[in-house]
Amino acid sequence: MSTHPSENQIRSLIDAWRQAVMAKDIERIVSYYVEDITAFDAVGALQFKGKQAYRDHWQACMEFCPGPGIFDFEQLQIVAADDIAFAHWLAHCGGTDEQGQTKACWMRVSAGYQRIDGQWRVRHEHWSAPFDMQSGSTQFDLQP
Amino acid sequence: MSTHPSENQIRSLIDAWRQAVMAKDIERIVSYYVEDITAFDAVGALQFKGKQAYRDHWQACMEFCPGPGIFDFEQLQIVAADDIAFAHWLAHCGGTDEQGQTKACWMRVSAGYQRIDGQWRVRHEHWSAPFDMQSGSTQFDLQP
Repeated sequence: MSTHPSENQIRSLIDAWRQAVMAKDIERIVSYYVEDITAFDAVGALQFKGKQAYRDHWQACMEFCPGPGIFDFEQLQIVAADDIAFAHWLAHCGGTDEQGQTKACWMRVSAGYQRIDGQWRVRHEHWSAPFDMQSGSTQFDLQP
Repeated sequence: MSTHPSENQIRSLIDAWRQAVMAKDIERIVSYYVEDITAFDAVGALQFKGKQAYRDHWQACMEFCPGPGIFDFEQLQIVAADDIAFAHWLAHCGGTDEQGQTKACWMRVSAGYQRIDGQWRVRHEHWSAPFDMQSGSTQFDLQP
């Protein structure tokens, strides 16, 4: 299969965005989003509409989860055309709590991208962990 | 904003696929998927790789949730180009149990599409419900 040139650009964007999250640099994190992003985050609400609402949520999450972060991506797949693209991957997310205990789990991520005025931007993000059909509990212990 | 002609085609595909789920017609449901679909479903596993694995999961879910189904879509947004597209929406999903009790909740859905040999197909699907950051419990009671 041939690789569309946009694919490497999306790969670079995802990596730069991941670095921004690792650096806990909220301005840089949200700089990749379109103003009217629709975000389905793993926690807290069905959806966050618009960059400001999602920015506030990022801030709340970072205050809730301080300490050194684990934020590794695996199995990234990108489907790209000239001006739109989508991608999905698995993310190992976690951190160290006040007692020095490291807690991490695997999440699933999907994202949609658009090139606007020559710049790739994130139009949509979806983060989640699955739940158990019988108990309704979130499945934090799954491994890829 | 102008509408790309692919947008209406994706809208039709999503509607036809929704009808297939309502009819509990598994062959028709999976007929829209590419062979090597990667699916992040709301329940049971981090991911399902390939049409057969996802088909088996659909069957297990339908056996677990018999009875008349609720499967309504809202706030559908589609971003489309000539041969790739992505979409996201909220889905009200539920059913009636053996005691005649109706149980339903809102889920978030993201999907990625590719036109292959002239036919639009689903390459990626992501279904989820969010969980509460403090308790880790799935948030089944959220409303749009």
